[in-house]
Amino acid sequence: MRNYTTQMDAARKGILTPEIKTVAEKEHMDEDKLMKLVAEGKVAICANKNHTCLSAEGVGSMLRTKINVNLGVSRDCKDYDVEMKKVMSAVNLGAEAIMDLSSHGDTQPFRRKLTSECPVMIGTVPVYDSVIHYQRDLATLSAQDFIDVIRMHAEDGVDFVTLHCGITQKTIEQIKKHKRKMNIVSRGGSLVFAWMSMTGEENPFYEHYDEILDICEEYDVTISLGDACRPGCLADATDVCQIEELVRLGELTKRAWDHNVQVMVEGPGHVPLDQVAANMKVQQSICMGAPFYVLGPIVTDIAPGYDHITSAIGGAVAAMSGASFLCYVTPAEHLALPDVEDTKQGIIASKIAAHAADIAKGVPGARDIDDRMADARQKLDWEAQYECALDPETARAIRDSRAPEEDHGDTCSMCGKFCAVRSMNKALAGEYIDIL
Amino acid sequence: MRNYTTQMDAARKGILTPEIKTVAEKEHMDEDKLMKLVAEGKVAICANKNHTCLSAEGVGSMLRTKINVNLGVSRDCKDYDVEMKKVMSAVNLGAEAIMDLSSHGDTQPFRRKLTSECPVMIGTVPVYDSVIHYQRDLATLSAQDFIDVIRMHAEDGVDFVTLHCGITQKTIEQIKKHKRKMNIVSRGGSLVFAWMSMTGEENPFYEHYDEILDICEEYDVTISLGDACRPGCLADATDVCQIEELVRLGELTKRAWDHNVQVMVEGPGHVPLDQVAANMKVQQSICMGAPFYVLGPIVTDIAPGYDHITSAIGGAVAAMSGASFLCYVTPAEHLALPDVEDTKQGIIASKIAAHAADIAKGVPGARDIDDRMADARQKLDWEAQYECALDPETARAIRDSRAPEEDHGDTCSMCGKFCAVRSMNKALAGEYIDIL
Repeated sequence: MRNYTTQMDAARKGILTPEIKTVAEKEHMDEDKLMKLVAEGKVAICANKNHTCLSAEGVGSMLRTKINVNLGVSRDCKDYDVEMKKVMSAVNLGAEAIMDLSSHGDTQPFRRKLTSECPVMIGTVPVYDSVIHYQRDLATLSAQDFIDVIRMHAEDGVDFVTLHCGITQKTIEQIKKHKRKMNIVSRGGSLVFAWMSMTGEENPFYEHYDEILDICEEYDVTISLGDACRPGCLADATDVCQIEELVRLGELTKRAWDHNVQVMVEGPGHVPLDQVAANMKVQQSICMGAPFYVLGPIVTDIAPGYDHITSAIGGAVAAMSGASFLCYVTPAEHLALPDVEDTKQGIIASKIAAHAADIAKGVPGARDIDDRMADARQKLDWEAQYECALDPETARAIRDSRAPEEDHGDTCSMCGKFCAVRSMNKALAGEYIDIL
Repeated sequence: MRNYTTQMDAARKGILTPEIKTVAEKEHMDEDKLMKLVAEGKVAICANKNHTCLSAEGVGSMLRTKINVNLGVSRDCKDYDVEMKKVMSAVNLGAEAIMDLSSHGDTQPFRRKLTSECPVMIGTVPVYDSVIHYQRDLATLSAQDFIDVIRMHAEDGVDFVTLHCGITQKTIEQIKKHKRKMNIVSRGGSLVFAWMSMTGEENPFYEHYDEILDICEEYDVTISLGDACRPGCLADATDVCQIEELVRLGELTKRAWDHNVQVMVEGPGHVPLDQVAANMKVQQSICMGAPFYVLGPIVTDIAPGYDHITSAIGGAVAAMSGASFLCYVTPAEHLALPDVEDTKQGIIASKIAAHAADIAKGVPGARDIDDRMADARQKLDWEAQYECALDPETARAIRDSRAPEEDHGDTCSMCGKFCAVRSMNKALAGEYIDIL
């Protein structure tokens, strides 16, 4: 029987949990220092007490940047076995979290499979599952129905849940009045908005927040405060809808912390590159250093098919500037459900953004692997280069597909005998340099 | 008979050239304002007087960010027709410049074909061609041989030439002493270094700079001052070798301007993300606002196979912070000669970086296309979305390959009936929202 509820409760009581110990080791951080950050809410360790196979990770701006992968079955992709393969492949590629966004069929067995077999953080968006679980249309659901689904997810071992608590009936008027180009593009946020519009009732996740906090405290579910009003295009970025919701998320963060419940705050979205750092600073200030979990930010709207790249740009700058958790974006974003290859491309792009940010913000040891790569390159040692590569198979396949016609001492076909590394190695060794 | 030598000379004399007129129109900039920037060297209009089919472009931090595509035949890819197809495809994808880095066979016919048929800026690196042109090994070439190749390229109509004028015999000692991880990774820089090492002579591009300026003035060839010491890995970034060369490039910039010769300055390279903006500021200061032409910057060394993404991150931040010209990087960087698909991926990634930066730095009208995309998305008007897309074919192919099983009013399979845009449009119209 544990003598604490949440990781935050434990940290505040000075109890060193196995999860805090694990995270401290992974981050090469002093346990006391980490415990203080967890107690303050600056690091969230999303670890449901029922997710016993979890290898805990911490989320916080002073730690290594983490990435999340969205998966789950839907009407257009129903096969749970295929989806489980995607999950394990995502974990192997380095994802620290999986959000199960399943929206079709009986969702519970898959969710339970995840929390019983998968060692990474598992997140869900209960409002998606409400419609599916009850098999009733949105307008017919009650506030209690939504809360019961949160409890079910908590019992099933989910580590964090996205709840769109920050919009209210007032937001409906504001959205109508403010005339954003894209209104609300958050899927969960739009469902809450739609439910409020149709029923005329207040946002159940806002109204019954205290009851939700009780559930989250009981199971140690971290609340990921969803940003329903995150901008869906550059024109809507950093507008009053977004910032007013952020202010409310700051208030809700404080209420959760008062309840020993851990919090992450979700963030934009589509944001011009010059506004990304400012967005991170504002969130850090308004939400008192709570971990910031961003989707993107996507820095131009005109690249469907390449939004893993637009969001790698925004994500790298965001994570360098205070975001601690990046939700991956795939090339299929805005167009279709991602397939296995899209998922891989999205993960790699997110890992690049996260790693570039970790180097930039000086996470201890982050650059070591880059330095090893540089040493391998200087020696033209290709096997050592592949060992340092984020995706060794792809790197090897590209070089092997177009090896130089002649062997010039392990160059590649990019430069052949014109290889600068080859020339420099010879020059510095005092050797004759043949180019022709 | 024109009464000026270079665009800079004309601008200084108050002569409105057809090229300045063209650039002013393209950039929606007042002609007098542009003329002043050209006169000061803050904008380079790379326009060899023999490149008569050119549609002029300006390069400068206050203008739209331009991108360059490296192409050219080599021992491992000899077919000039294939290469010409790559060129025209690059132009169609939006490249504003092509650098012909051919390093095999008879290079002149292809170079002349480029300057007689291709409307974008053409650049070369004469030191590559020297070995090929004379068919003699590097150590046997004389300083005059190198200069004669520059003159040949100028006569052939090349708009800008990369010359590695900034390293000297002193640099050899510095490189040996400083023990960089990657020494010199600039291909042209390594050739100059190798020639200096083997002959013991001073850098011909530095020693005979005045003679080179005479040639460049005669044909209006812009000098792109190559950065031989650009960092080849994160560990070498912003080190004394790089910065000392930059200081020399600043001196050479001034000497060129005194000669009415236009200049661009080349920059890094591999740079940690937190150092990118600082690098741009230092260059702008040391080189008195001369346009900065960067390769990358690549923000992590560990992603071979994905360096179009690592450099899109660095390039976007660089262009937002002062760089005006991005050299594309392909997924094959560090591994192999790029093929047609790599070239396309590299161009798109560079265009994304350039466009994101243009929005961020407030280039007039840059965000208009993004706003049109947002309007199309809000209406779920897919044809209008494709019209705004950087790569309409790819966007269309992704959506069409995985269309929703059921039609829910033009959503896509990403969310199906859970589509936030669909829900919001219905909610704001006061309609019932069916989700199941």
